[in-house]
Amino acid sequence: MNRKLIIPDIVVGRLPRYLQALQRLQKRAVQTTSSKELGDILGISAAQIRKDLSQFGEFGKQGTGYSVPFLIDRLEDILKLKHDWDIALVGVGDLGHAIIRYQGFSNRGFCVSMAFDNDPEKIGTSINGLIVENIQNMPARIQEAQVKIAMLTVPAAFAQQVAEDLVKAGVTAILNYAPLVLSLPKHVQVEYIDPIISLQHMTYYLE
Amino acid sequence: MNRKLIIPDIVVGRLPRYLQALQRLQKRAVQTTSSKELGDILGISAAQIRKDLSQFGEFGKQGTGYSVPFLIDRLEDILKLKHDWDIALVGVGDLGHAIIRYQGFSNRGFCVSMAFDNDPEKIGTSINGLIVENIQNMPARIQEAQVKIAMLTVPAAFAQQVAEDLVKAGVTAILNYAPLVLSLPKHVQVEYIDPIISLQHMTYYLE
Repeated sequence: MNRKLIIPDIVVGRLPRYLQALQRLQKRAVQTTSSKELGDILGISAAQIRKDLSQFGEFGKQGTGYSVPFLIDRLEDILKLKHDWDIALVGVGDLGHAIIRYQGFSNRGFCVSMAFDNDPEKIGTSINGLIVENIQNMPARIQEAQVKIAMLTVPAAFAQQVAEDLVKAGVTAILNYAPLVLSLPKHVQVEYIDPIISLQHMTYYLE
Repeated sequence: MNRKLIIPDIVVGRLPRYLQALQRLQKRAVQTTSSKELGDILGISAAQIRKDLSQFGEFGKQGTGYSVPFLIDRLEDILKLKHDWDIALVGVGDLGHAIIRYQGFSNRGFCVSMAFDNDPEKIGTSINGLIVENIQNMPARIQEAQVKIAMLTVPAAFAQQVAEDLVKAGVTAILNYAPLVLSLPKHVQVEYIDPIISLQHMTYYLE
């Protein structure tokens, strides 16, 4: 039996938040924490956190709480963050540019190691030491380096085609910034970042 | 009885996606759709979509489907998108800069109408016609213009303090790009955009 099949995706989606909270505690040299403390940081109930973590094993003892370094170690293991993942970024517009220059990936498990665009003015330029490559070379470069994760920051009109090319080259996880839903084979993970969707969610509650 | 209290937030969170799919259909001049077609576009089951929409009233007839313009109208009304919302952006780094230059807000209900920073080199400069203002003037400017929504693109170390200042000035919805959870009064809506959290969610499923 594949154990993974029985962990609901919504639980998996909360694990990175737990890890983030734990890493912040570790920065402050906190050694032990509780589901209550984590819950206060994250705005999630302590019961929910205990229930989520219990799906992956016994991580803490009643009354003594969780060891911060131990729980970080376990979550990094579960989320496969024990080594850095290379990321191919496609589309070096304003947003792609900002992402390449962002310093926050390297200490959280990721490295933007390739960037592609179709604009001759951008190809060959360097951003934070990363050379923008011709998108025509993308499939071969990704296949060769066995990159599994891509960030898609191309205009919406190109996103579906580029995503299909990425998948053909072996990519199995795409973080899509283009404001549309991609239609891809089931084995491909897709996550969406669309500020408008988040804003429209909030306006529902505004007066 | 406040009807809103009984609609689960997870349902509300899917409405912007339905609206996005409908707007794409409208662009292609599609007049009528079905929960099956919407579900195929969004990767959500038709039954889920029917159940979600039924919480807000009768929007379609069995067998004839949904009128695209009518459903767009209803969703814009429910999500309070009948008028554009002004947004105050705080932190004009690479990401803030990219957001100000992004063209996709205006036709989806939002307008970045103020931008603030504390860097003297940035204050007074113009990005796409928007003048970057001194963050010291932020509370007065927001209060005066009665801006309710802010985008937070400051470094993590400043995010909590700036968020508290925004709330004091009357902001009740914050889209937070800083990689930490904000601790704010309950009446304030907060949504988070953190690419690392999304990436770590996907690596769980990678081999």
